[in-house]
Amino acid sequence: MTASSVHAHDSFVRRHVGTDPDAQRRMLEVLGYETVDEMLTAAVPSTILLEPEGRDAVSSVPAGITETAALAELKALADRNTVRRSLIGLGYHGTHTPAVIQRNVLENPAWYTAYTPYQPEISQGRLEALLTFQTMICDLTGMDVSNASTLDEASSAAEALMLARRTAKRNGNVFLVDTDALPATKAVLRGRADGLGIELREVDFARDGAPEGDYFGAFIQYPGASGRIWDPRDVIAEVKSTKAVAIVSADLLALTMLASPGSLGADVTVGSSQRFGIPLGFGGPHAGFVAVRKGLERQLPGRLVGVSVDAEGNPAYRLSLQTREQHIRREKATSSITTAQVLLAVMAAMYAVYHGPEGLTRIGRQVADRTATLAAHLVASGFELVGDSFFDTLEVRATGQAQDIVAAAGEAGFLVHAVGDDLVHLSLDETITSADLQAIAAVFAPYAQNPGQELAETASGGAWGGLAREDAFLQHPVFSSFRSETAMMRYLRRLADRDFALDRGMIPLGSCTMKLNSATEMAGVTWAGFNAIHPFAPREDVEGYLELITQLETWLTDLTGYDTVSLQPNAGSQGEFAGLLAIRAYHASRGESGREVCLVPSSAHGTNAASAVNAGLRVVVVASDSRGNIDLDDLKQKIKDHGDELAAIMITYPSTHGVYEEEVRTVCELVHDAGGQVYVDGANLNALLKVARPGEFGGDVSHLNLHKTFCIPHGGGGPGVGPVAARAHLAPFLPGHPAMQKPEHPVAGHGEQVHGGAPVSQAPYGSPSILPITWTYIRLMGPDGLRHATASAVLAANYMARRLSESYEILYTGENGLVAHECIVDLRPFTARTGITVDDVAKRLVDYGFHAPTMSFPVAGTFMVEPTESEDFAEIDRFVDAMLMIAKEGEEVLAGTWSAEDNPLVNAPHTAASIATGEWTHPYSREVAVYPGSWTAPEDLSTHDSAQMRVQSKYWPPVRRIDQAYGDRNLVPTWPRGDE
Amino acid sequence: MTASSVHAHDSFVRRHVGTDPDAQRRMLEVLGYETVDEMLTAAVPSTILLEPEGRDAVSSVPAGITETAALAELKALADRNTVRRSLIGLGYHGTHTPAVIQRNVLENPAWYTAYTPYQPEISQGRLEALLTFQTMICDLTGMDVSNASTLDEASSAAEALMLARRTAKRNGNVFLVDTDALPATKAVLRGRADGLGIELREVDFARDGAPEGDYFGAFIQYPGASGRIWDPRDVIAEVKSTKAVAIVSADLLALTMLASPGSLGADVTVGSSQRFGIPLGFGGPHAGFVAVRKGLERQLPGRLVGVSVDAEGNPAYRLSLQTREQHIRREKATSSITTAQVLLAVMAAMYAVYHGPEGLTRIGRQVADRTATLAAHLVASGFELVGDSFFDTLEVRATGQAQDIVAAAGEAGFLVHAVGDDLVHLSLDETITSADLQAIAAVFAPYAQNPGQELAETASGGAWGGLAREDAFLQHPVFSSFRSETAMMRYLRRLADRDFALDRGMIPLGSCTMKLNSATEMAGVTWAGFNAIHPFAPREDVEGYLELITQLETWLTDLTGYDTVSLQPNAGSQGEFAGLLAIRAYHASRGESGREVCLVPSSAHGTNAASAVNAGLRVVVVASDSRGNIDLDDLKQKIKDHGDELAAIMITYPSTHGVYEEEVRTVCELVHDAGGQVYVDGANLNALLKVARPGEFGGDVSHLNLHKTFCIPHGGGGPGVGPVAARAHLAPFLPGHPAMQKPEHPVAGHGEQVHGGAPVSQAPYGSPSILPITWTYIRLMGPDGLRHATASAVLAANYMARRLSESYEILYTGENGLVAHECIVDLRPFTARTGITVDDVAKRLVDYGFHAPTMSFPVAGTFMVEPTESEDFAEIDRFVDAMLMIAKEGEEVLAGTWSAEDNPLVNAPHTAASIATGEWTHPYSREVAVYPGSWTAPEDLSTHDSAQMRVQSKYWPPVRRIDQAYGDRNLVPTWPRGDE
Repeated sequence: MTASSVHAHDSFVRRHVGTDPDAQRRMLEVLGYETVDEMLTAAVPSTILLEPEGRDAVSSVPAGITETAALAELKALADRNTVRRSLIGLGYHGTHTPAVIQRNVLENPAWYTAYTPYQPEISQGRLEALLTFQTMICDLTGMDVSNASTLDEASSAAEALMLARRTAKRNGNVFLVDTDALPATKAVLRGRADGLGIELREVDFARDGAPEGDYFGAFIQYPGASGRIWDPRDVIAEVKSTKAVAIVSADLLALTMLASPGSLGADVTVGSSQRFGIPLGFGGPHAGFVAVRKGLERQLPGRLVGVSVDAEGNPAYRLSLQTREQHIRREKATSSITTAQVLLAVMAAMYAVYHGPEGLTRIGRQVADRTATLAAHLVASGFELVGDSFFDTLEVRATGQAQDIVAAAGEAGFLVHAVGDDLVHLSLDETITSADLQAIAAVFAPYAQNPGQELAETASGGAWGGLAREDAFLQHPVFSSFRSETAMMRYLRRLADRDFALDRGMIPLGSCTMKLNSATEMAGVTWAGFNAIHPFAPREDVEGYLELITQLETWLTDLTGYDTVSLQPNAGSQGEFAGLLAIRAYHASRGESGREVCLVPSSAHGTNAASAVNAGLRVVVVASDSRGNIDLDDLKQKIKDHGDELAAIMITYPSTHGVYEEEVRTVCELVHDAGGQVYVDGANLNALLKVARPGEFGGDVSHLNLHKTFCIPHGGGGPGVGPVAARAHLAPFLPGHPAMQKPEHPVAGHGEQVHGGAPVSQAPYGSPSILPITWTYIRLMGPDGLRHATASAVLAANYMARRLSESYEILYTGENGLVAHECIVDLRPFTARTGITVDDVAKRLVDYGFHAPTMSFPVAGTFMVEPTESEDFAEIDRFVDAMLMIAKEGEEVLAGTWSAEDNPLVNAPHTAASIATGEWTHPYSREVAVYPGSWTAPEDLSTHDSAQMRVQSKYWPPVRRIDQAYGDRNLVPTWPRGDE
Repeated sequence: MTASSVHAHDSFVRRHVGTDPDAQRRMLEVLGYETVDEMLTAAVPSTILLEPEGRDAVSSVPAGITETAALAELKALADRNTVRRSLIGLGYHGTHTPAVIQRNVLENPAWYTAYTPYQPEISQGRLEALLTFQTMICDLTGMDVSNASTLDEASSAAEALMLARRTAKRNGNVFLVDTDALPATKAVLRGRADGLGIELREVDFARDGAPEGDYFGAFIQYPGASGRIWDPRDVIAEVKSTKAVAIVSADLLALTMLASPGSLGADVTVGSSQRFGIPLGFGGPHAGFVAVRKGLERQLPGRLVGVSVDAEGNPAYRLSLQTREQHIRREKATSSITTAQVLLAVMAAMYAVYHGPEGLTRIGRQVADRTATLAAHLVASGFELVGDSFFDTLEVRATGQAQDIVAAAGEAGFLVHAVGDDLVHLSLDETITSADLQAIAAVFAPYAQNPGQELAETASGGAWGGLAREDAFLQHPVFSSFRSETAMMRYLRRLADRDFALDRGMIPLGSCTMKLNSATEMAGVTWAGFNAIHPFAPREDVEGYLELITQLETWLTDLTGYDTVSLQPNAGSQGEFAGLLAIRAYHASRGESGREVCLVPSSAHGTNAASAVNAGLRVVVVASDSRGNIDLDDLKQKIKDHGDELAAIMITYPSTHGVYEEEVRTVCELVHDAGGQVYVDGANLNALLKVARPGEFGGDVSHLNLHKTFCIPHGGGGPGVGPVAARAHLAPFLPGHPAMQKPEHPVAGHGEQVHGGAPVSQAPYGSPSILPITWTYIRLMGPDGLRHATASAVLAANYMARRLSESYEILYTGENGLVAHECIVDLRPFTARTGITVDDVAKRLVDYGFHAPTMSFPVAGTFMVEPTESEDFAEIDRFVDAMLMIAKEGEEVLAGTWSAEDNPLVNAPHTAASIATGEWTHPYSREVAVYPGSWTAPEDLSTHDSAQMRVQSKYWPPVRRIDQAYGDRNLVPTWPRGDE
């Protein structure tokens, strides 16, 4: 590490890392080390620690550069993409992102740096926006309950398949899929079905109706991928009459014109909200959804926001029915989704709020009318259309000319899609103007039998039989209150102001790595060169993206010690699922498909077990020893017990206990020797970059979380990216995609190879429009900067652990008493003595101005604290001080100063309204309630961070503690709707 | 007006205008009119009202288009500019805007939509940032007191000239100017001196020292425009010994290396903070400054932030010594500045906070070293340098080759400046990398006598004699606390959160037109095609800008009814000054230079009188009648009194009383008949667009405020743009500029003509980088949209006036009882009865969540309320409701429920801390204090805007009422500095 470059005045590293050399020296003093390297050597087992100089220093990751230089390089990549207006459709449509939403949500750290709303009291803004999203989905689809977003339309379909299998009141191993479903959806469904041993059968429902036979669910695309609109009422009724589950995938904009799936009888509706203001982004991220009829809500995958009440009886939002989530249900989980797409769902919801029902209807009407106009013109010009009932999509017969028309359209700046040589497929969207319509018509003119026809905008869409929509939607006042930009801007600010995000203070969530998401990293996300590209654009249009993706794959390969990387999984859970599928496929390819047992340590993330089950594996738990490490004796026994059935072990490194386990090489060797594969969960990679490589110390495959270690912001609960990295022998089994522009990926030492597994995401490269964030981060940091970041994160965690140990026990440490990048603070002794629970402390931290650490994971009754490298010394000390003051407050309860039932901890958090209204009957003062510690000390202008300034900057929670049980007992998953 | 297009679903007009047709119908009902046009016909004198259809409907302003289409057109203009790296220098330098500052200040409505901090309690964030700016200026310049920014470096020099004239303890009419001053500064000084009858004399101080003779001030550029550095100590001492004022214009970055002007003895230092992170922007906006030694602070032009205390004794920031401002001093004002450059000053201050003293020093050192490296290389290559002591600027002798070298540099992507045929002038800046240095050297190589020299970065800048800086600067902790991006982002959020801007609620400031600044309008400001252009770039590089400027001039000409427009004035005051200079020059051109009397109505803006004096005119006040209109009899008398001395009348229309005066045509005719010119102050143009044209009803010249009517955001107190529009006979006298790329401007009916007056701004086109905001606004609205906006603003003002009249008297109305776009609410009867002052009501409005209206202007004891067209119906009603509730609170005081000394009005505003700490001894409850009205009513989810939601969104002022007098008695104009 060349300190000079990392600390150079124009180095980004010193902006990313919160502690400067002086602060680090003071922290090291507390820990008793001279240098950061000395501390790292003590913390990290020598068996895996990389040498900072010498062999390990050689890296394909280029040295870090300045922010200006990195943006110039990124811009050059963006400029290598060609932005053409897409008419490809197939699930992705052009849309106008309202500027007020782009600026005040997508480009506003108050929104994008927020965490998943597990602490609802400090998340009311985004929870309200998500309730609006759910209402919008329910209203448009005619369903009763929608989740708060899923990863994309295809994974929503896969979740619906699993829901159908769980809930269908009949057996059967067959799932019916509409031949007119989106190709990408079919491919993802097939991968998911294969994992679970389900037979997928394609049916042309429109032509043939529902077949006889043994099936548990049917999936209908409405309108069809071909644009075809037909009435699925009878098919749905038939499916339901056999006690199978009827699933409809619908286009939200079409639903402004067409009868809702709910009104047609569907049990489940899935889809995407992309065309509600979310840029194409070469495929993502966008927010999908799954919505269900009443009775299925407890089977709903993903997160669900509901209304509950707070301690004062006021309505308050929270995540409902969380017991469905896999971090609680582990191998009994019914879904593999932990990551949603909150930021995108918020944007889509606000698009609906801004346009309202009339606005959306006018947009839908315009698209329908312009499509009808184009259709009429093409017919008049002598072309034959495949269907005669459509909303926005036409298939035009042009025998032998389809490719020529595609080329001509390209010349005119439009991308259209050819189905073979004879069919041209094109979809219109809200961005198509009258002038565009003329230009599109001109593309077809040279191929017309009757050229020279005038295109007059007189046609009106609507040859939809009995399917024209008749019921109202979006009738709640939230959809009519914010139509001017001023009103919208203020609403977005009011919502943002209710929430606590990284722009207010530390979010020390263990295992979540809430580090800086820098403005420079975020810049590329909103460039047209990245965000105006259709995922199925031809290869020549996306060379910049492909180069960026190849570079990123190479860099991540290098940093993890693996041989190849797939960036397709659009969440960590998807990466995990893809990695396990690769392991299964690898065993199968060697004739060992009997290997079905997946060992999972008792300390593992619950997601691990859930993913294993989804991938068709059987989970066997391995015990931990008293220090939290994998119990080697138990591991040996389990390996012996399962012999040839052993498929894999899933470990997390550093462990979920926040410690660098000494014996990780041994664990990997034992499993390898027994013919198993090693899955290393990359959740804790922030403790490893340029310090150790999982692919080098024994891993065969890992998923990474670009939204943790690699700076993609959490977005309030998504988007994420969960690449899967693997050794070369697994490369053929990593996710492929039928539409991938470049199926070959770099494999270290093997040139390039095709990733040939089933797709796990709807788009070939998952969520590419946010990859520039990670690319920029790595480009800015370089190998030296990344190592400095890792070391700084570990230093901060150990410093906090040391200081917190004044009042709390630190549960696990490594051999030298050191933790890795996070530490588990054991509150159980404190709770046992004082009665103050981990929940009380978490809510009391809100009064002190902090987001709580991770609660009760991986050990109930504890906090897991992860400061990351980005927090500065002052903020770290402020958090520790708050925790120590809370400990003292607990002692006051023990001493009887305050009763167990009425004290500032059990009553936390305190709103401003709580000290302003009604009588104050508590045994502590209002000041103690809302300005704990020494906040109201006199001001001193000679320092900057004085108490008075903290008073002025206080975060006020908008609600008191929320009654979790009430919300589950009384599920309110939407705004009050007109029909209720 | 074609209602369909204005209300089309993709029309921007319906996003800009807050009230929809339904709301307008309800407002009209209250007023008793059927249609908006009917109301307008009643409000606007028929003598000036334009016909919406027919002749007046013909317009050069194109019909409005969608946001997407407008941005595409704007992008095409930006693409016609060529972005080359500028080495031109001459007061404008390349700089890196830290991304965290760009995103969180420049692109954040919480900063850019704020108003000037006249209400300090709700402006603590930007006041703190400005205190930091002042500290930064004082530290670097070695002065004692700096203002909080001025318009640019040249106008700062002009202000310093005037300061010198006021304060020099000797007479004399001569002002000495360094021959090595910036050319633009010289040109602006000359214009200002001409206006005031001062003789400007150029002196080569470095060569000749200070001359003998009669002068009141001397202006020294340090380093010189040529880059030359010499020791001005002796000259300064000599100047001061003659009791003249020694003014230094200094480069802030150079001052990190060089002894400060203060340490050299200067009385005054001026300069620009542009290179501290502010994009070039083709010349602006940037923040200039004027700083003075102790003893001169009461003569300081512009605004000055100081520390005072609030009602609880806590430190609080405010504008100090406001009695210097011209809205109070009128014709006795010592300065014409009301507009500062707050947004840019905040950015520059935050650049210093982010880099700190070491960072700035490292940047300065790098520039000095690279300049020395280039110099050494050029000398080794056989070139001769003009000077041998320099910081960042070199003048290279290349006899006969200068133009060729300029061309070669252009090919290589660099702009350099040729002085004649023999001298190449170039300046380095922080953006110049080692690679750039090689590229620049390569430009010179073909012209070198000894080509082939290696360029090695070994030289070190510093041949500065005894001028190397030795003292420390920026030692306050604010300059060392926020070095990581995370810390900086949070600091910026904390500051923003203390302030109330348009993103929180209405700012109903009469005469300030706080309307929507839309995100689409703001988009272009941060595009490189507009903001990375040097103001002296060659014409071929700026064709896009010139086209945009020409279009804008044409549109503004059309909208105002004048013949030509100059966009150069970078504030309304500058436009006013330019307009008056044009009038004087016009009279002089006709041999009537004796016309020196300027009539100013008693109701005029104070700025009018101050500008008139600055332009060398004598102010004579014309009385108003009882209805607030110009007293025609008195006008006739004054015209008669002054005969051939009559130069002009300055009127505001609609009047500052917020009324469309009936007799405006008569007033103009009377003045014209007497040989005078009519100046129409354009401050209230928001009541006129597409309704009446000042150039048509009698004006000869007007200034406009693009930061009012035309959507440039107020930025917390700047930037502004104040174009001057005039009839054709004044065109030759509008501001020109020696460096103007296109001196000819459109003049209706006369083709193009040169604007030949003296420049009033440092840059040829003033602040061009914010002109895209106005361009976009007009392009989006079109003529129909603009008329709809005007009508909607007038409707809103009348609706408010009608509702407010329930409890308050509306001071002035027109013939039909209607006001124009604003109304004056007379609080004097209320104050007389209850003792509650206008100040109490203003501060109490903060508790209700509003910014106060304009206070005591133009009539003491009143509010002037202007809602603009952008506020929605709900917000308008909320404000009125708050005012009516406050009236009721006043009645409680009168009734004795609360004492006159202790009630929620005199104690307002109430902070959160005020209800949390200490005893509550007031006769009203905490709830009444902070949640007045019915805010805490029970929640109802079926509406959106419930009371509970307002409670959750409450704006909390950070301080109690601020003691204004204390701050003036105890002036604290900087953070505590190391030397105090």
